[in-house]
Amino acid sequence: MNKMSVNRAVTGKAETIYALVTPALLLDRGRLERNVQKLDERAKALGVVLRPHMKTAKSIDVAHCAFPGEPGPITVSTIAEAEYFADHGFRDITYAVGLSPASAGRAMELCRRTGADVKLLLDSVEQADALADVHEATGVQPTVFIELDCDDHRGGLKPDDPKLLEVADRVVSAGARLVGVLAHAGESYGLNTPEALVIAAENERAATVRATEILRAQGHACPIVSIGSTPTAHFAQNLDGITELRAGVYMFFDLVQHGIGVCAREDIAVSVLATVIGSKPEKGWVLVDAGWMALSRDRGTANQQIDQGYGVVCDEKGRALDDVIVAQASQEHGILAIRPGSGKSMPDLPLGSRVRILPNHACAMAAQHEFYSVVNGDSPVIEARWQRMRGW
Amino acid sequence: MNKMSVNRAVTGKAETIYALVTPALLLDRGRLERNVQKLDERAKALGVVLRPHMKTAKSIDVAHCAFPGEPGPITVSTIAEAEYFADHGFRDITYAVGLSPASAGRAMELCRRTGADVKLLLDSVEQADALADVHEATGVQPTVFIELDCDDHRGGLKPDDPKLLEVADRVVSAGARLVGVLAHAGESYGLNTPEALVIAAENERAATVRATEILRAQGHACPIVSIGSTPTAHFAQNLDGITELRAGVYMFFDLVQHGIGVCAREDIAVSVLATVIGSKPEKGWVLVDAGWMALSRDRGTANQQIDQGYGVVCDEKGRALDDVIVAQASQEHGILAIRPGSGKSMPDLPLGSRVRILPNHACAMAAQHEFYSVVNGDSPVIEARWQRMRGW
Repeated sequence: MNKMSVNRAVTGKAETIYALVTPALLLDRGRLERNVQKLDERAKALGVVLRPHMKTAKSIDVAHCAFPGEPGPITVSTIAEAEYFADHGFRDITYAVGLSPASAGRAMELCRRTGADVKLLLDSVEQADALADVHEATGVQPTVFIELDCDDHRGGLKPDDPKLLEVADRVVSAGARLVGVLAHAGESYGLNTPEALVIAAENERAATVRATEILRAQGHACPIVSIGSTPTAHFAQNLDGITELRAGVYMFFDLVQHGIGVCAREDIAVSVLATVIGSKPEKGWVLVDAGWMALSRDRGTANQQIDQGYGVVCDEKGRALDDVIVAQASQEHGILAIRPGSGKSMPDLPLGSRVRILPNHACAMAAQHEFYSVVNGDSPVIEARWQRMRGW
Repeated sequence: MNKMSVNRAVTGKAETIYALVTPALLLDRGRLERNVQKLDERAKALGVVLRPHMKTAKSIDVAHCAFPGEPGPITVSTIAEAEYFADHGFRDITYAVGLSPASAGRAMELCRRTGADVKLLLDSVEQADALADVHEATGVQPTVFIELDCDDHRGGLKPDDPKLLEVADRVVSAGARLVGVLAHAGESYGLNTPEALVIAAENERAATVRATEILRAQGHACPIVSIGSTPTAHFAQNLDGITELRAGVYMFFDLVQHGIGVCAREDIAVSVLATVIGSKPEKGWVLVDAGWMALSRDRGTANQQIDQGYGVVCDEKGRALDDVIVAQASQEHGILAIRPGSGKSMPDLPLGSRVRILPNHACAMAAQHEFYSVVNGDSPVIEARWQRMRGW
């Protein structure tokens, strides 16, 4: 590295990736826009509303890519996200985590302050009963979904569980408004064939429609019938009876989604730019300044057919280096090495050169950073810096 | 939860843990102070300077616990940490990650601006040669350590590698100042008996002293002989020939250190406060609002004798619940369950109740949060809010 590049790096005027302080989170705007457009078109073709999950991007600028016109319906994973997006003009927000009395209270305060409609999620009579107090304390009538369990993944009620009707009745008794049911095929992340994904999507659809029929037969209107996960959203063949689709990681994609078969590696829109800080030629290692603090500790590909370590390594323009992965990571060090069994040899990566590292899990990698440096394709130019929000 | 507690949670006036928005990072001040004092005393008894690593805490308030009087010597893992602590009065800072030309340039700019002495780390002639340009570009003479490899962990040179003297000579030729050698027994994290830890500590010491002798025989003074990792720092029997000890996670400790045998579970000073948001009695699950976003994805105990899942669960006062762990984690959900094979049954944890979750890895859990809510023992009172720094 010559004197000019040292000076350029020191000034902090990050007009190109060469002047960025590393590790740095890059977002490829072209890939982002193509990913967003693809699922928009699928949702239209399937006749459902798309309600993107903002937990991956946590950025108003990314939200504006999904909604170039008026703010539309969104999903969030924390009340702090609901507050952030409401303060940026979003009004139709689903908080897709089971409510506690405290979080329901914060959500209703937000509705009162901004006029937003923050929809809550529950699956128990205890949660339904708590809504009466929340209503009285805040003066806002809560709007709620009942969470369904379509694949034994986490929370929610099975469609045929007698508690489904009991919970619905208690929501109404508590003076809250039941807007519908919500399911998430979380087990689809463990699949890897188109056939299995089509079946998972149909199972998610059928279970949700079944619950809706049971509730409607007892007089609960359930205007919103909501399903979604990035894998099932991309493999659903029909969504009869469903009104809306949720997905989040589809905007960025990642190596886990690539391993499932939902995207190509070239669709992945986020990466971490890292700088080479050393090597151990006798071990075939190159060291970079991106460890788990920048990449996250996510090892989501560990149980997939191809274990990508802590991420796939690309050159500075974003072209994957054959079989080079981040084999090990400590807090601020990544060890690049050839994938075991590959037979290839390490490319030349001299001190100070730069690489891009694709994430196992985009939500987790992005969460380690304060902002996105927005790039487009193989150009080194930084088009913009987009802030992320964080916290709860 | 009654109306008063809903209101209290909504106001955000967090005077006790019951009013904190969850998930929240708690720091037990009494445990922190005891952990700090213990290693201070060990370092004194062993006749070495303690240079704490600030990568775990990343907080000036925690640094003040380690240095109640004048700011002392510290270690950092990013240039942003060096900038943060220099701006808070620290002057003797070791940046313990191999330098790139860009990071060396930033470090020397910081020295010029604040008068701090930021010591750099290298293990190659390429890095040594780059220092001449950094010196010329910034007008500051770099101060450097040569990194040693005592256990094949990551970077560094073996003491008997002929490159050791070559790199030392090139540092001098580049006009930089060689202050010594630095080793880190990173492989000690994989051990779990006192005997093995004593051997690892002695190996770290002996390799470092050997390298120092070789350099001194060729006229390199090496005034600082630096070693350290939290496990070896606690098991070293003598440190003859060593001048300073580095450690970081010892301030907080965690379940990985507990599994290695370095601390008791009751020494762990950080935890995440979480709220119960649901249950699946038929599966023995309780759901809380702390997933990997709050706990980190770290699974450092997975390969230890006792796999702690994503963390050990304690009651709201910090008393461990027998064999209850975070068995699974998604972004904002944790699933609490009894450890496989335990035979115990889940304690009653009703909706809205609170638990504290001990970390696998304190550095990784703390990095997911913006601030510490400081508590002491089993009192629910929040004594202070201490900010953390982040980024690069």
